Amino acid sequence: MTVKQLALPDLVAECVRLGIPGVGLWREPVQEYGIEATAALVRDAGLAVTTLCRGGFFTGDGWEAENRAAIDEAAVLGTDTLVLVSGGLTPACPDLPAARARITEAIGALAPYAGEQGVRLAIEPLHPMYASDRCAVSTLDQALEIAEHFPADQVGVTVDTYHLWWDDRAPAAVARAGAAGRIHSFQLADWTTPLPAGVLNGRGQLGTGAIDLPAWAALVEKAGYTGPVEVELFNDALWARDGVEVLEETLEAFLAV
Amino acid sequence: MTVKQLALPDLVAECVRLGIPGVGLWREPVQEYGIEATAALVRDAGLAVTTLCRGGFFTGDGWEAENRAAIDEAAVLGTDTLVLVSGGLTPACPDLPAARARITEAIGALAPYAGEQGVRLAIEPLHPMYASDRCAVSTLDQALEIAEHFPADQVGVTVDTYHLWWDDRAPAAVARAGAAGRIHSFQLADWTTPLPAGVLNGRGQLGTGAIDLPAWAALVEKAGYTGPVEVELFNDALWARDGVEVLEETLEAFLAV
Repeated sequence: MTVKQLALPDLVAECVRLGIPGVGLWREPVQEYGIEATAALVRDAGLAVTTLCRGGFFTGDGWEAENRAAIDEAAVLGTDTLVLVSGGLTPACPDLPAARARITEAIGALAPYAGEQGVRLAIEPLHPMYASDRCAVSTLDQALEIAEHFPADQVGVTVDTYHLWWDDRAPAAVARAGAAGRIHSFQLADWTTPLPAGVLNGRGQLGTGAIDLPAWAALVEKAGYTGPVEVELFNDALWARDGVEVLEETLEAFLAV
Repeated sequence: MTVKQLALPDLVAECVRLGIPGVGLWREPVQEYGIEATAALVRDAGLAVTTLCRGGFFTGDGWEAENRAAIDEAAVLGTDTLVLVSGGLTPACPDLPAARARITEAIGALAPYAGEQGVRLAIEPLHPMYASDRCAVSTLDQALEIAEHFPADQVGVTVDTYHLWWDDRAPAAVARAGAAGRIHSFQLADWTTPLPAGVLNGRGQLGTGAIDLPAWAALVEKAGYTGPVEVELFNDALWARDGVEVLEETLEAFLAV
């Protein structure tokens, strides 16, 4: 998503050229290119699919079929992790406790199926500024409380610095998640202000914002995480530029932090 | 601030006409009108000044003189409460732990002076989306942890629904704050999306957003709070309209929730 302006074959070729060993994919471009075709593309390039983004949105209608399809797609792509953005308030779930109860219930309905497909569900707490319209799970503690109802090889969490950096309880939650083998994804983005309207597409390039990213990486590593580290920048300014240039710059920023 | 388009004499006259018994004032319009003149204006109208907003911004330079002046102004206005927006990251306080340490230290330096003036400092946790640029105190638990270093009649907290509604730990913190006599201010605003650019001026009129305001009022009341309930809406759309109309509408919305 950081370089969504790149078509999948270009993205894959550039990752290979730059020595980037894996890539997190989003469902929409994968569906456009074709799921089997994408799987063949990355496999032939020797590239790992680190995660598929995203399942979730459990508080609305149709979540079960949609999420089963996402699990199937993850399995075809050969990634072991489906990231979940759980959904906000809806007529069916008009307040946060109702939304969180529905999210727990929905994940319970999906977890065994995901396990059968070799796909782990990674509940992503989103920043509290998204609590009403995108994700009623706002802290790593909340995500863990939901995940802990289920086996760790079926349900865990996504640790994304952009969403969690402000929370003084997050470091303890990272340690707890790591000890339980529940950190299924680790994503980096920096926090920059002012936030743009809608607050979706203002994630900062690594090293340009408020977050101590090396400290977060050390925290997650100390918690026992050995998986891939993704960079996920939703940023209108980056998307408006040449994708290869942004990818190169992002790799440089990644190595620097 | 909800009707900042109204000049102070109009604001006071309209409050009296509508039976609104008190008003929270901001320093800038008070300074423009004159502090003594404002004090006489509200006193002669029989109106209480519920709080003065705001002191704080401890992470930059010049906070001590500025906050002593704010305490003095509060005393002249006859309010017992100065609301604190504590400040975000700065070169002197480049990360959240440093900022929070500075905030604690600064409040410690001010609390005895505030006590002598009969003014209570009310630390306001701001929504985590302001953590980097306005307020490193993001949760009621954090605000309480700072306040609890000092006597309750000198330092407490502001409970503002807009900033706290998403936090599943906030209800327990409200109870704890109330039991200790540390709820010094209670403010209402609703949460509406999409957020505007800069995320400052999109607070929703009461009853139009995601927050269960009656439940919050009940929570604060159950915690023993018997003070004023303020409505604080920063909203460009409301500010663009006739102030008297907005004040009437806000009173109606307040009574309805």
